[in-house]
Amino acid sequence: MGPHTATGLVPERYRRMVLASRPVDKPDTTHFRLEEVGMPGVAAGQVLVRNRYLSIDPYMVGRMYTTQSYAAAQALGETMVGETAGHVIASQHPDFQIGDAVVGALGWQEYGVSDGTNLRRVDEQRAPLSAYLGMLGMTGVTAWYGINRICRPVEGDTVLVSAAAGAVGGVAVQLAKAKGCKVIGIAGGEQKCHYVTRVLGANACIDYRPLASKEALTEEIFKHAVDGVDAFFDNVNGWVLDAAFPAMSLGGRIALCGMIGRYGNRSMQLLSHHFLLLSRLTAQGFIVWDHVGEWGRAVDELSDLMDGGLLRSEETRAFGIEAAPHACLGLLAGKNVGKQLVQFY
Amino acid sequence: MGPHTATGLVPERYRRMVLASRPVDKPDTTHFRLEEVGMPGVAAGQVLVRNRYLSIDPYMVGRMYTTQSYAAAQALGETMVGETAGHVIASQHPDFQIGDAVVGALGWQEYGVSDGTNLRRVDEQRAPLSAYLGMLGMTGVTAWYGINRICRPVEGDTVLVSAAAGAVGGVAVQLAKAKGCKVIGIAGGEQKCHYVTRVLGANACIDYRPLASKEALTEEIFKHAVDGVDAFFDNVNGWVLDAAFPAMSLGGRIALCGMIGRYGNRSMQLLSHHFLLLSRLTAQGFIVWDHVGEWGRAVDELSDLMDGGLLRSEETRAFGIEAAPHACLGLLAGKNVGKQLVQFY
Repeated sequence: MGPHTATGLVPERYRRMVLASRPVDKPDTTHFRLEEVGMPGVAAGQVLVRNRYLSIDPYMVGRMYTTQSYAAAQALGETMVGETAGHVIASQHPDFQIGDAVVGALGWQEYGVSDGTNLRRVDEQRAPLSAYLGMLGMTGVTAWYGINRICRPVEGDTVLVSAAAGAVGGVAVQLAKAKGCKVIGIAGGEQKCHYVTRVLGANACIDYRPLASKEALTEEIFKHAVDGVDAFFDNVNGWVLDAAFPAMSLGGRIALCGMIGRYGNRSMQLLSHHFLLLSRLTAQGFIVWDHVGEWGRAVDELSDLMDGGLLRSEETRAFGIEAAPHACLGLLAGKNVGKQLVQFY
Repeated sequence: MGPHTATGLVPERYRRMVLASRPVDKPDTTHFRLEEVGMPGVAAGQVLVRNRYLSIDPYMVGRMYTTQSYAAAQALGETMVGETAGHVIASQHPDFQIGDAVVGALGWQEYGVSDGTNLRRVDEQRAPLSAYLGMLGMTGVTAWYGINRICRPVEGDTVLVSAAAGAVGGVAVQLAKAKGCKVIGIAGGEQKCHYVTRVLGANACIDYRPLASKEALTEEIFKHAVDGVDAFFDNVNGWVLDAAFPAMSLGGRIALCGMIGRYGNRSMQLLSHHFLLLSRLTAQGFIVWDHVGEWGRAVDELSDLMDGGLLRSEETRAFGIEAAPHACLGLLAGKNVGKQLVQFY
């Protein structure tokens, strides 16, 4: 335990990032505002946490708008919502002690008060603290759910993963490989494709950037999946999803995990969705928060795979809360490899 | 058994309908050709069937093109493929006797030879012969599968059915009603809507024809499904499917059964499919032929519901094989109510 665990050393003020205004078209850094606020007191039943890591996730951008996301809209002038990992530095709560490593949703701020709801103690002996926001957190469990509950690939199946160099996509690639599948990634740029094949172990990775059309992407998918794609873990939607439809095998499964494609410049409309019917496909949208009952099992399996060396947890870190907006916007531009975190200290 | 069951009275020639040419844009009667051909002999292991009814189904149109359908393309100059019901009039097959009522896929022709493959004996005491092409045939089993295996509504759920006055849609409406659901139909024209509510028992039916836009249809759906649609049995696709997406409840199920909408004048592209993700929907395309293992159970349940007065089997009949093309094209224009049949004699 460092000096931050002694309540006597808690500063009087700390910094947080609020939503200053809503984007009309695309979000930029002017939509955020950094504020300094007074340290709150800790009432009975509460704990004060010093956040060390903030998880940056695509859903955060959706929340900046009023009606575009499955998540409730982010309130103006309030602390941006987000998952955090840190240590308890003051506690009036029977379940938490000073020094406990905890994961919660305390938002884009250096410190936060919690009544214990949704605050989980985690074991830093088992995995580094940041892993609980990535591989052993929402990121990993999302990939686990999509692969195990929707894609359901068996050994020898061909599995396609879009945004394969992203946090969730990267785990999905590795989970499918661990099941003995042939895995084809889709990512933007040579460097990312190199990462997806060499580091994550995908059999192939398609760089979509030089492709002029949806049809060209379909053709590339067929090149690597001659007999079709049995399962598609999709983080992009739009033209990438549309390009994959014709390449799906009969009875194929599509896990609709994200729509990062909506922040790009290509079309979101679907024209080839008749393959859902023609090829008897199942497309299922999901959000990991709907399946909290599976969380424990997922984390256990992910931990075992990590221990066995079958899962690599890649991170891109930005430093300091002032870097958070840039990191968040960078996610939309595909600047991260693996899990995007902001480290506060 | 009438005189047609005596082999001595079999005519020397009979009529069949072949595909004369493929439509480039929309199909019309010039794409069909009526032919008279010689009566085939009956070899060992074969039966000769005099067809009484031909089932007219939307998939037939897809087969007229080369690549638009899940079904293999119909060969040029060959007898149009189709489900038939009739009686055995000559048999060299141990499992079939003269006079047996049978259902098979003998195509658009007055007589047909079969080696017994896919030929099923049916019981005319239990239900009229034509019912085995409708309620107790592909039509009924399709509705049964979509409702029971994909839509999976429970009592109190709100179920939406498009093309609700059509053969499959009409059964889907009644199956959902029998489960205690609130059922909302979509159909074209006041007369059909009247049929869907008064005869089939739907709680409401939306006439899409006067609606100027997709948004107007969404609004109409919300009027009748204030808390959203739990399950959608869709026979239309395109703009109707797109209009339904925003009205689906969290976790809603969509059975993609048909694309009759592709023969209309409105758009087939999807723009609101992001609700698949936002509302965690499952959309599943299906074809009843993939699920032959469920056929027996489905027919038993459908028979029981018919016997209990909970299922009405509505038919639209055309007479004579020469009327078949017109009946088939009429299906696309929504001219039928319930199951469209051609009666040969």
